[in-house]
Amino acid sequence: MQRATLMVSAADRTGIVAALSDMVFRYGGNIIDADQHSDEETGTFFMRLSWALDNFTLDREGIEDALKVLARGFEHMKWNLWYREKPQKIAIFCSKTPHCLYDLLLREVMGELEGEIALVVSNHPYLQEVADHFGKKFIHIPVEKDNKASAEDEQLAVLKEHEIDLTVLARYMQIVSPKLIQALDGQIINIHHSFLPAFIGAKPYHQAKERGVKIIGATSHYVTEELDAGPIIEQDVTRVTHRDSVHDMIRKGRDLERQVLSHAVRLHLQRRIMVHGNRTIIFS
Amino acid sequence: MQRATLMVSAADRTGIVAALSDMVFRYGGNIIDADQHSDEETGTFFMRLSWALDNFTLDREGIEDALKVLARGFEHMKWNLWYREKPQKIAIFCSKTPHCLYDLLLREVMGELEGEIALVVSNHPYLQEVADHFGKKFIHIPVEKDNKASAEDEQLAVLKEHEIDLTVLARYMQIVSPKLIQALDGQIINIHHSFLPAFIGAKPYHQAKERGVKIIGATSHYVTEELDAGPIIEQDVTRVTHRDSVHDMIRKGRDLERQVLSHAVRLHLQRRIMVHGNRTIIFS
Amino acid sequence: MQRATLMVSAADRTGIVAALSDMVFRYGGNIIDADQHSDEETGTFFMRLSWALDNFTLDREGIEDALKVLARGFEHMKWNLWYREKPQKIAIFCSKTPHCLYDLLLREVMGELEGEIALVVSNHPYLQEVADHFGKKFIHIPVEKDNKASAEDEQLAVLKEHEIDLTVLARYMQIVSPKLIQALDGQIINIHHSFLPAFIGAKPYHQAKERGVKIIGATSHYVTEELDAGPIIEQDVTRVTHRDSVHDMIRKGRDLERQVLSHAVRLHLQRRIMVHGNRTIIFS
Amino acid sequence: MQRATLMVSAADRTGIVAALSDMVFRYGGNIIDADQHSDEETGTFFMRLSWALDNFTLDREGIEDALKVLARGFEHMKWNLWYREKPQKIAIFCSKTPHCLYDLLLREVMGELEGEIALVVSNHPYLQEVADHFGKKFIHIPVEKDNKASAEDEQLAVLKEHEIDLTVLARYMQIVSPKLIQALDGQIINIHHSFLPAFIGAKPYHQAKERGVKIIGATSHYVTEELDAGPIIEQDVTRVTHRDSVHDMIRKGRDLERQVLSHAVRLHLQRRIMVHGNRTIIFS
Repeated sequence: MQRATLMVSAADRTGIVAALSDMVFRYGGNIIDADQHSDEETGTFFMRLSWALDNFTLDREGIEDALKVLARGFEHMKWNLWYREKPQKIAIFCSKTPHCLYDLLLREVMGELEGEIALVVSNHPYLQEVADHFGKKFIHIPVEKDNKASAEDEQLAVLKEHEIDLTVLARYMQIVSPKLIQALDGQIINIHHSFLPAFIGAKPYHQAKERGVKIIGATSHYVTEELDAGPIIEQDVTRVTHRDSVHDMIRKGRDLERQVLSHAVRLHLQRRIMVHGNRTIIFS
Repeated sequence: MQRATLMVSAADRTGIVAALSDMVFRYGGNIIDADQHSDEETGTFFMRLSWALDNFTLDREGIEDALKVLARGFEHMKWNLWYREKPQKIAIFCSKTPHCLYDLLLREVMGELEGEIALVVSNHPYLQEVADHFGKKFIHIPVEKDNKASAEDEQLAVLKEHEIDLTVLARYMQIVSPKLIQALDGQIINIHHSFLPAFIGAKPYHQAKERGVKIIGATSHYVTEELDAGPIIEQDVTRVTHRDSVHDMIRKGRDLERQVLSHAVRLHLQRRIMVHGNRTIIFS
Repeated sequence: MQRATLMVSAADRTGIVAALSDMVFRYGGNIIDADQHSDEETGTFFMRLSWALDNFTLDREGIEDALKVLARGFEHMKWNLWYREKPQKIAIFCSKTPHCLYDLLLREVMGELEGEIALVVSNHPYLQEVADHFGKKFIHIPVEKDNKASAEDEQLAVLKEHEIDLTVLARYMQIVSPKLIQALDGQIINIHHSFLPAFIGAKPYHQAKERGVKIIGATSHYVTEELDAGPIIEQDVTRVTHRDSVHDMIRKGRDLERQVLSHAVRLHLQRRIMVHGNRTIIFS
Repeated sequence: MQRATLMVSAADRTGIVAALSDMVFRYGGNIIDADQHSDEETGTFFMRLSWALDNFTLDREGIEDALKVLARGFEHMKWNLWYREKPQKIAIFCSKTPHCLYDLLLREVMGELEGEIALVVSNHPYLQEVADHFGKKFIHIPVEKDNKASAEDEQLAVLKEHEIDLTVLARYMQIVSPKLIQALDGQIINIHHSFLPAFIGAKPYHQAKERGVKIIGATSHYVTEELDAGPIIEQDVTRVTHRDSVHDMIRKGRDLERQVLSHAVRLHLQRRIMVHGNRTIIFS
């Protein structure tokens, strides 16, 4: 089934739900999913509309024009429109640890991702075999202290060449530069191995052990320039006790990391996430 | 803020979201919440719409008329409409154990319930003091083997007299008759102390211990004639180990029971539940 | 059943489990519970032993003597010994919000606490009725900016007069002074309404909303001089979404707070907690 | 570190903890882990003891003799003793669906299993590549209606030939015969894709959808002759809503299945499980 998905934000005003659903109806679209949210604090309205294109009589350009007309009546209206014409292309960045990489690749095999993992990029050669096993292109771009800028240029070139829509840092273990982050704005997702905002930065499981917490977590977020401070997409937690060493926490954390990261990637690919300031609205 | 809430079901068809939201818009209503669901299996559409009445120009009768007109265009359309004019009235049925009763009464005090607990009915006199403490009318209707029918007549009379909208069986521990269930159809909620459909009937924690499960649960559901088989509203679970005796399970279960029952009551009072066959659709 | 509970820490060494269990056995004690833990990082051994006193031939003094003898063979050995002779006495400190107070009082009624709530202390008069309802002494000690020191002196006097073993800050909302903390060292438990170490200090739910987390939590800990930094006893979490306002988080958080605080109090009263540096060992 | 692990059950009696820990101490063993449990219902005592063999002066035969002597003093005493001399050997049985197989293989790579996956057995050829990728022997034994008995003979021969200690049914999708179950008694673990005892048998997610539950689960258990009724080792659950189709439940369930099965296998390999009647005691 061909499908269009529209996400709109605007200053909250009477009639916006009616106006948008009427636009879809008027041209023969059947609404599959409609969800909306009003943020009272900022007076902002958000809507996600998804409809079948089978009998829909407007083409993409037509929809854009219709939205432009609508936008005259609603202040600060912004939108994004996606057609399910072609699968989104994903690049996975990884280092040495394979659990998140396996997880994403296996989910593609199981048909869980609305997208296609197009390439695996790593600063180490170790996970080549994993990419091979799943029939994925593997690109080894070493990152050293003195070649970081050129390595990132190479990464950006590769992402551009393969027309990548989404970059996933799957325990990539490198801090990426503002330049790369800006180039991929809103299209780059990270997994941090703590329950943010607790334990920002390096060695969060060591920090958790030190503090004596009874629950550890993992957080997936869009990458922004401030470290581990981007809009949170998904978090999950698990219990630990005094018996759990840092090593045990790392083991338990792996299960969280892969679940949380994959869930966040899935939500992004299904176009269920709107970013509002430093927070996310998740239309489930 | 005055508010109307509408829940509609109909055979799924193009245009129903547009038609309903247009009706609200046309008469000056500002949509606060809109959520919908299509059940693919049965081809049924469900929608919940909530709008502000401040500038809305249709009165209740007018809305009913507008819906009747709409219903001509959509097959099998049914609806329920609520105005937030007056709080819904709740009766709590209990026996000897007080934890669910306290929980509901305290939540009313904390402003968590969109309703008013109007009376407490019990087959035992023990919880009179609890009702008194919260300033609630307590009615003791003894239920014995040989007076069950007349006791239920008395219960129904009391519910009618106090214009009760929702009856909550808060660990009431009596099986209620089909007569009473029919009289309160869709307006009577029970808490069962197991993760249904496991451990139906008496002594579910004993059954759980016997089976050696690692997780126990509680289930809140609408009461129907078949025991513990009504539409499930909410469930929750907690971990147990071999160290937990039946007594420990009962203790842990109390926490589940009060949380799950109160959550279900809250959802019902907020008009977030639609029953479809033997299942519920929960618009959160 | 009369019962003794012993908690021992020492430098880890061969034979300590055998020595302790042999001591109990030699004098006719039947071990009900034995649990131990070795902290590899610091080379410290911890044990909790609980035994029936029915046929035990040593009196309290005798056990103390036997332990002194044992301590010669094991470095840095420290112990605490409790007899279940008399229930521990608890004071609850509260302010205006009643949910944690009700919860603890109800659990005593339900027989969940191995202790007796002896008094309720508040800086406000509002919860007097709740204490009355449960038949508890209520002491109103107003705390203002300029009488804080004298108010704490009064609090300490009251705790001493009633021979209180454990003080529970049940959403008490006042920062207590180092003097009071030192006087109650290891005998004062607080509930903080966040998933520590995230959101220390005031208005944690506002902080959580601001950061856009997808999970909120509550933490119960021993009170130490550094704010919200004492040894953590118990934590729990619940999911939130973009739909949850700060008000909703406060409501959801209440359920966490009462569960987490009561659980921590229960563990303390059962003598299941050993503090090691700034962390707890919980013998479940 | 060489280590011995002993699991003992006996009629509960004074002195058994002392006797066992004394035996370890007397011959120079340093206890690493000691945990015990008394089942009050049946008056049975259970203990797990794990100690370092570095300075231990008894060999395996010696321990057995010492236990025989001890057993004279304690009724119904039974024991199992393991040395960490060589890794346990595991066979994984699978069909077409790969998620549990990948999960177990990856955990071995990550060092999470105290054992070695020695072979993969399947009634279909599809997962050969997965076994190859991880360097594991893959044996295809087709199972048809008319060759079931001979196929199982072949399976048993293969298990014997490779000296398999534990057989894991990783979504194997075949009902195994009593003959095979008896041959592998206590050494065969299954994953069932429901929260047992709810939804026994085929298509549990369809059953769950039909009943309208709000939580689905997975259960790992030892296989016994009665279908899905063996001693439960581990269970876990996740939330579902009316929006989740059977297909969504299957997807969500996969995450549960792999977590629950791997956790159960891990507990078994670490010798943390004692079976008592139809229940398990898990020494965590």
